[in-house]
Amino acid sequence: MAEQEETNPWGSKSWSYLSSLRQQSPLIQCITNLVSMDLIANTLLAAGASPAMIHSILEIPDFTPHTQSVLINVGTLTPEWLPAMKAAAGVANQFGKPWVLDPAAVGASGFRLKACLELIELKPTVIRGNGSEIISLSMASIGSGKGADSLHESSDALEAAKSLAKSSGAIVAISGSVDFVTDGQRVVGAHNGLPMMQKITASGCAVTALIAAFVAINPTHAFEATASAFSVFGLAGEIGMGLAKGPASLRMHLIDSLYALDQETVLHRVKITSFS
Amino acid sequence: MAEQEETNPWGSKSWSYLSSLRQQSPLIQCITNLVSMDLIANTLLAAGASPAMIHSILEIPDFTPHTQSVLINVGTLTPEWLPAMKAAAGVANQFGKPWVLDPAAVGASGFRLKACLELIELKPTVIRGNGSEIISLSMASIGSGKGADSLHESSDALEAAKSLAKSSGAIVAISGSVDFVTDGQRVVGAHNGLPMMQKITASGCAVTALIAAFVAINPTHAFEATASAFSVFGLAGEIGMGLAKGPASLRMHLIDSLYALDQETVLHRVKITSFS
Amino acid sequence: MAEQEETNPWGSKSWSYLSSLRQQSPLIQCITNLVSMDLIANTLLAAGASPAMIHSILEIPDFTPHTQSVLINVGTLTPEWLPAMKAAAGVANQFGKPWVLDPAAVGASGFRLKACLELIELKPTVIRGNGSEIISLSMASIGSGKGADSLHESSDALEAAKSLAKSSGAIVAISGSVDFVTDGQRVVGAHNGLPMMQKITASGCAVTALIAAFVAINPTHAFEATASAFSVFGLAGEIGMGLAKGPASLRMHLIDSLYALDQETVLHRVKITSFS
Repeated sequence: MAEQEETNPWGSKSWSYLSSLRQQSPLIQCITNLVSMDLIANTLLAAGASPAMIHSILEIPDFTPHTQSVLINVGTLTPEWLPAMKAAAGVANQFGKPWVLDPAAVGASGFRLKACLELIELKPTVIRGNGSEIISLSMASIGSGKGADSLHESSDALEAAKSLAKSSGAIVAISGSVDFVTDGQRVVGAHNGLPMMQKITASGCAVTALIAAFVAINPTHAFEATASAFSVFGLAGEIGMGLAKGPASLRMHLIDSLYALDQETVLHRVKITSFS
Repeated sequence: MAEQEETNPWGSKSWSYLSSLRQQSPLIQCITNLVSMDLIANTLLAAGASPAMIHSILEIPDFTPHTQSVLINVGTLTPEWLPAMKAAAGVANQFGKPWVLDPAAVGASGFRLKACLELIELKPTVIRGNGSEIISLSMASIGSGKGADSLHESSDALEAAKSLAKSSGAIVAISGSVDFVTDGQRVVGAHNGLPMMQKITASGCAVTALIAAFVAINPTHAFEATASAFSVFGLAGEIGMGLAKGPASLRMHLIDSLYALDQETVLHRVKITSFS
Repeated sequence: MAEQEETNPWGSKSWSYLSSLRQQSPLIQCITNLVSMDLIANTLLAAGASPAMIHSILEIPDFTPHTQSVLINVGTLTPEWLPAMKAAAGVANQFGKPWVLDPAAVGASGFRLKACLELIELKPTVIRGNGSEIISLSMASIGSGKGADSLHESSDALEAAKSLAKSSGAIVAISGSVDFVTDGQRVVGAHNGLPMMQKITASGCAVTALIAAFVAINPTHAFEATASAFSVFGLAGEIGMGLAKGPASLRMHLIDSLYALDQETVLHRVKITSFS
């Protein structure tokens, strides 16, 4: 395995992102859904980042300029939250900071779809969804998902993702049994992770938050940062599974493992391959 | 014990609900309080259902028709949330889908009591509360509880529950050292569970969510579904307690155990008895 | 060590608060941020209190008079929540009940700072923050923190804390590697706890909630109650760390340990020293 990794630069790339994150502890503003706040904050803290759940539109002019990246997740969107999301995305753009969109359950309603399409106009650096969410966004249509759960395999959404990446200018990332990342041309697949992670609520939201943190480290290489975040999160799940007895203990051990991940493990076990 | 269960159909009924839930993975819309979202979502995922925390009134016309049941919990009610709750209950009724009410801390204020009485006008399939909550609802009076905690044993609320079931047409379920379920005539008691579960915040909310999932499997037998959900949740707690050292580890092991519950355990250990 | 504690009254004071809490189970109203609700409720339940997350302004006249203390935490403040916070503080004052302010991330914006200064006008019994938060409050200036994380050691904020205690009339408590408590004259340091607790989101919020519970036991000795709450929470963390492998398992074992803390452990291991 070590041999394979020596010819594959992703292990050392991923380690470089994670170790920089621990060293720099960037401030990540999270405007996220009500279900995911606890897991996202704990994921970011365990990874070395400094999360801030601040979502009032009144605070964005003072606060957002000091952040290193912004996460926006529409999982429990209401009309009251949307202006703050747009304002935060706007300030991020103005100050040259990356921002990441999680279009959670975008297919649930016309309201949510319209909100996500408006947010995409504000040029997210990365968009991360499951297969159904990426297909909904790409086709601008609702009804393709099952709430926050996907009805599509990630590979089914690959063409939709490429098309969305080209039209939006964002890196597009699809979670699934393999996680895919594309800039519209290149495609890589991140193979770490395991199915039981889907039984942990907000685990998708948490990986988007980790992407926001990795992108903060090097905004000009968002493609690499996104693929690395997928693999590091999946790897933490794999290691956590060694101690877990079910989804709740997996959640705990995943966070513990993310906190403890060491260089050797990342170098040897990150598995990202090119598909383009 | 196996003998007793052979003459008692509840073990096989409960298993039938749980195994159908795992197979069908119904979509359960949860409009619930801010404290309980994480535990409810993880409970539903562990049990095999697909939870969706979607509470904006704008999304209900698009989304609610696709759900298999709706959970409404007033634990952190504000006036802004109430119209969406009513709209979701209305859509559930219109599409013949069951919906379940958790009148959390209904005795805390006149505002909350009035809201719950208005929701009951919208014909919930099941109402699940603790003893104090059921007494408050039945007497339409406040001050009988202690926030979300009960000042009454479940058995004290049995007559109130029968009366509420008759007046509302709902199955009424009371959590306590024994959990009772009544349709106004029949009464059964579910004996699984243990006192430390009350030290886990939102454990009552979580069992109401599980009731909503079980009722989705067979809406015409809500009485049986409710009693079965109580016992399955309590049984997961009993098994979890074998590994737990306190309320936080019990919470984790309960979810893990719910995920792993097997047929033999359910058949042999579910304990539901008739009281009428 | 036993000898030291015999000459140090804090072990028996702390035990007296904790055992009274378990016996009396006071009702604590929490108007707190969205990230912290689950951990705060579970912390209060494990310690023996009865938490109630009730934040609608409509409910305060009915509900707040029945509580034994009120916790107000501005971590995810929006303009809609502020009037209810002020109303609850006002009712607490009117009924002679203590209330505790957590000025979470007060340096994040002018809006938040102004809100906290207005809340301080309503005479909190205790204010608990990290070093950066206490400095922001004392200087009435923003930008001194990093979201919810501190850029200052607790000892750096000691003069600011004394000054804030004098001007506000509140007990002021600073979390850090040593936790300090001052009434403007006296200063004590609570030495229990460990650095990894800062990697648990909302652990600061949780200790403020425990302070609110301890203060409910004896509102006229808020200085002693606050120092005792710090040490009991820190001690639960120390014991939990014996079983933990990282921040997520520490969170779990901390709550379990708080639930199980016994007299001998509290008497022997609470470490609070005088600095004035």
